Amino acid sequence: MKRRAGHLKGSLKAAAACALCGAAVLLAGSFSGADVQPESRPRSAWDNPVTSPVVEPDGRVTFALSAPDAGRVELSGQFMQGRRMMTKGTDGVWRLSVEITPADIYPYSFVVDGVEISDPSNPLTFPNERFKASLLVMPSDSALYEPQADVPAGQVRYCTYWSRRMGLVRPLLVYTPPGYDRAAATGADYPVLYLVSGTTDTEETWFKVGRANVIADRLAESGEAARMLIVMPYGYMPAHGTPAPSSAAAAGMYADFAAELTEEIIPYVEQQFRVRSGREWRAVAGFSRGGGQALFSAFSRPDLFSAVGAYAAYLTPEVMEAHFGELLADGHRADSLLRLKWFGIGSDDFLRGGVEENLRWFDSKGVDYELFRTDGGHTWMNARKYLAQTLPLFFPHGGDSLQAAH
Amino acid sequence: MKRRAGHLKGSLKAAAACALCGAAVLLAGSFSGADVQPESRPRSAWDNPVTSPVVEPDGRVTFALSAPDAGRVELSGQFMQGRRMMTKGTDGVWRLSVEITPADIYPYSFVVDGVEISDPSNPLTFPNERFKASLLVMPSDSALYEPQADVPAGQVRYCTYWSRRMGLVRPLLVYTPPGYDRAAATGADYPVLYLVSGTTDTEETWFKVGRANVIADRLAESGEAARMLIVMPYGYMPAHGTPAPSSAAAAGMYADFAAELTEEIIPYVEQQFRVRSGREWRAVAGFSRGGGQALFSAFSRPDLFSAVGAYAAYLTPEVMEAHFGELLADGHRADSLLRLKWFGIGSDDFLRGGVEENLRWFDSKGVDYELFRTDGGHTWMNARKYLAQTLPLFFPHGGDSLQAAH
Repeated sequence: MKRRAGHLKGSLKAAAACALCGAAVLLAGSFSGADVQPESRPRSAWDNPVTSPVVEPDGRVTFALSAPDAGRVELSGQFMQGRRMMTKGTDGVWRLSVEITPADIYPYSFVVDGVEISDPSNPLTFPNERFKASLLVMPSDSALYEPQADVPAGQVRYCTYWSRRMGLVRPLLVYTPPGYDRAAATGADYPVLYLVSGTTDTEETWFKVGRANVIADRLAESGEAARMLIVMPYGYMPAHGTPAPSSAAAAGMYADFAAELTEEIIPYVEQQFRVRSGREWRAVAGFSRGGGQALFSAFSRPDLFSAVGAYAAYLTPEVMEAHFGELLADGHRADSLLRLKWFGIGSDDFLRGGVEENLRWFDSKGVDYELFRTDGGHTWMNARKYLAQTLPLFFPHGGDSLQAAH
Repeated sequence: MKRRAGHLKGSLKAAAACALCGAAVLLAGSFSGADVQPESRPRSAWDNPVTSPVVEPDGRVTFALSAPDAGRVELSGQFMQGRRMMTKGTDGVWRLSVEITPADIYPYSFVVDGVEISDPSNPLTFPNERFKASLLVMPSDSALYEPQADVPAGQVRYCTYWSRRMGLVRPLLVYTPPGYDRAAATGADYPVLYLVSGTTDTEETWFKVGRANVIADRLAESGEAARMLIVMPYGYMPAHGTPAPSSAAAAGMYADFAAELTEEIIPYVEQQFRVRSGREWRAVAGFSRGGGQALFSAFSRPDLFSAVGAYAAYLTPEVMEAHFGELLADGHRADSLLRLKWFGIGSDDFLRGGVEENLRWFDSKGVDYELFRTDGGHTWMNARKYLAQTLPLFFPHGGDSLQAAH
């Protein structure tokens, strides 16, 4: 196998160029069609590739979009207030540099003539049903969201289960901690956190945006949290692409989700995975609407759960009273039913008033809870903080356990 | 737990409305900033949610995008030639209906004033580094890409491994077949297909677009293909977001990938998973540039692989000759080295000429191969066909096997 370096380089240079061109044809293969005037073909990300975002060591981030024919391009990002106009260069590329602190994972998008779009140059996208944002991941040695070479990494499994309730194949993500694959040999079983995302999020959002797996890896490695499974279901019950529910359908969404979780998802997980059974080994948490679903599920079935995390959760006192007023008539009983009732809320969160109203209702029932206040708004930056705060609290009595110890 | 239906409905109706509004604030929370004029706020997917795409039973598909301020919106999709203008309604929503056959999974995008964007209403996106397309999944009882309730489903695991070669934490997807979790108990081990995607694709593309997991589930269930693991690495070696390589760097990409695959990925997989070792239990395949990487890897290390699938593969005879001319000087030896050398190419594929040129080189060496011709171009619709054709061929001698039988 002799190498002929000069010859090789030449031919591979051609290969690289052609492969790129080929990919362009793959995307825009339609241009060979007779009904397209070549001169009307806009230069796209393919014709004029840019790198975006580019993060400098000082925290300065430059965003770029090739859009020579657009009239107006703005940057929208959760690292700043308002939108900012980007500036068009003579190369047709719009650019803007922004100083961003603190290091975090921030959703952002470009707004092209009024349409919000993701960054074509960035492979990291925000899984959602209604918008397509991109993710700026700022490097940070201390951030819990960054995988570390010396921290053993768990896995996230994309599973499907058959929901008899819905008559549909349903998606489900399951994080398994490092060492899980040896569980069958060692006889270890694990506690389970069921973790729900928000309105229009998908089953992927806690993984791709929330980085629940990386945070769990880090906190287990440091000994702060138990090793556990994290199950991430699809919080919105209808199939992907189904129109938003009517008000009547939405009214049943909390109860629907609780039924799906307890009648379909938990049995599937406990049949497929090595998990500990018993309420002290199950927790449920969620962000935004998912927080409401977590509260509703936990209070509906305290025989199944011992802890609940409500991250900027939406659920009204009226719903609580209608469904759980009787159950919580005696606060002490509620405390014994659910060991941990944890609420997190940001100072600028538009749901802050609603959460505080809900907590006053808990106060009126004499029910204890933990409240964690952050700065900031209704963001996934805060959702990650809430998760990191609560992972050590769900199973303080330990993580994986030998089957023999049951 | 008494239900008060009337009261409940009212309060939950408000909850649903507010949750939606809240999500809008989450996305566009910046609008409260003082530097934004409310009147300049475009109506977005949030203000005017649409459902798109909508597939009718007769195969008619309606695409829709809310873009009241855009000057020109076109539809681009691999189900048709050319772009087509969409029509703006009085509600600011651009729409177009298209008859689409056959049922398949088609990438498509909108082109807004010259910028290609994904469909904000569709959660199914095409993982890629350079463009953001959406996926139209047409329902079909016969298509291999559709999960079936009565077909046991495997799982796709998002893993990371530490590459000593690169000094980076690297992503890797691993499909495990149904029953894999019981392997430790039953002592079964599995053959492995290493499957590489194309230029600017990511490690997710064979999963999200190629549906390799669903196709493998279906073919294993019907008995046509062995149960196997499918390992999907990231074919482009630099980290996500790194600028496209210079020609000099690109020239080394085939050899770099082969080294990463054989020195890092295979050892990781064989340490982490229950797989059969020995070249007859390893195959490598890929699409486009990934097909070239598969050919290069297989011919570089025939001691590790017994079969290769080259799906519309890019690799020139010059590279083959420079690296493998000596090895293949005796065609019979090549045949004994690699049992299966499979090539697939579409009649309209822009790489067809290149593939045929490469095959003439194989002919000149007297090396046998299998050639599968399809209609169509350099598309993922064809990539799925090639995968379905080859899965039964990689391990005709069987799938999972009891450890004791080794």
